[in-house]
Amino acid sequence: MISVTLLGAGNLAMHLYKAFSESDAIIVNQWYNRSLDKISSYKNEVKTIDRLDKLNKADIYILAISDDSIDEISSALPFDNRLVVHTSGSVSIHHLDKKHIRGVFYPLQTFTKDADVNFKEVPICIEALDKNSYTTLKTLGDAMGCTTYKISTEQRQTLHLSAVYVNNFVNQLYRIAHEISDAKSINFDILKPLILETARKVQTMSPYMAQTGPAKRNDKKTIKRHLKLIENQEHKAIYELLTKSIKKTHGQR
Amino acid sequence: MISVTLLGAGNLAMHLYKAFSESDAIIVNQWYNRSLDKISSYKNEVKTIDRLDKLNKADIYILAISDDSIDEISSALPFDNRLVVHTSGSVSIHHLDKKHIRGVFYPLQTFTKDADVNFKEVPICIEALDKNSYTTLKTLGDAMGCTTYKISTEQRQTLHLSAVYVNNFVNQLYRIAHEISDAKSINFDILKPLILETARKVQTMSPYMAQTGPAKRNDKKTIKRHLKLIENQEHKAIYELLTKSIKKTHGQR
Repeated sequence: MISVTLLGAGNLAMHLYKAFSESDAIIVNQWYNRSLDKISSYKNEVKTIDRLDKLNKADIYILAISDDSIDEISSALPFDNRLVVHTSGSVSIHHLDKKHIRGVFYPLQTFTKDADVNFKEVPICIEALDKNSYTTLKTLGDAMGCTTYKISTEQRQTLHLSAVYVNNFVNQLYRIAHEISDAKSINFDILKPLILETARKVQTMSPYMAQTGPAKRNDKKTIKRHLKLIENQEHKAIYELLTKSIKKTHGQR
Repeated sequence: MISVTLLGAGNLAMHLYKAFSESDAIIVNQWYNRSLDKISSYKNEVKTIDRLDKLNKADIYILAISDDSIDEISSALPFDNRLVVHTSGSVSIHHLDKKHIRGVFYPLQTFTKDADVNFKEVPICIEALDKNSYTTLKTLGDAMGCTTYKISTEQRQTLHLSAVYVNNFVNQLYRIAHEISDAKSINFDILKPLILETARKVQTMSPYMAQTGPAKRNDKKTIKRHLKLIENQEHKAIYELLTKSIKKTHGQR
């Protein structure tokens, strides 16, 4: 049995609590948040606290808090030499106060308040400064049913950057398609199966192999017709830049 | 029972044949291809032909051929006044020889040779010049278990353009993330669940509502750190342009 104390009450903290409480091998010792309001509905199943001086012993302290608070909260913890981890994709492990045994437990997924996430499908990126901490964190990830990866600080920061491309930027392309089709009274539902299939395809095939379309074929006629169709200058610039990028990847010019 | 004659042997033709043959309400009358080789493995279940003068009567003739051949093949068909449709997202209905009753039957999905597609999840965009043809084509789509949409030429061309954003361009962002993570020896598998969840999210939520990340929050510190991390100038230009686009969409500056 592994005992964890959770700190924070944002989307990630909520999803982590749910994943912890569903595992027989994990016990949530205490749940801290500055304000008890947000976690009060859990007070019958877990000890909720709003003061750091009430924290007692646990195997791992998990800071599921905003990037900017990691420094401050980790310093304010009234103990030392215990395993304290943050969950951020971009903050260095060294932002944790060095009085602690430090680690990072970064679940690479997008979390939305009301959307259910199956944590078993979430990859956990683990960083630790010694072997024992790594093993403890891996045990925690395993107990959640997750696939875990040993990741360095540099790799984690690169993953965070890559995630911006495949999540935020991809989502913005969905948004642009939504705008373009809305302008012609087209139901966005028509595009949803294609969106899903495009994501499914690269689960088993490299993005390089999965590519199709006018840019890859260097189909100048279609590209020209598309550019004429686009009214928004920013959408046009994105079309041109990504077409150029695909052509370059696939050796067209 | 609705009878169709299929022309062509590319990815789409293959998937269409499979979907037709799985429906009790559809009979594939003949399957034409310039070369019999590609469809010879089906000769025991369907009449395969390689000469247009062997075509006999069917309710619908479906041209699942390359965009550039639609003009020529539709003119070469040795009959008139029958329902002939093409399956292209970008070719005008008027490229079909006007001796035919003309239509478009455009399945909006990405088709790969070896990847199985559940046609019931494929939206079919139907265009016709008269009500009877529309009804016949809708009956065909319904018999395949598909959702069908009545779409004008202009709407279809806009859909084709939108599909480039959500398929080709999105896939190129996957490719860039693959390059960026490969360069730091990061397993691309770590990003796959995020890719899938990003696509799943917009099945029930608008892309506008689904957006998260540093650009939306206008988190200048993270954006700056990311830009420092990107070595490839083209990847950087894409990061900057899409960040600008997200900021604009979400009222940041």
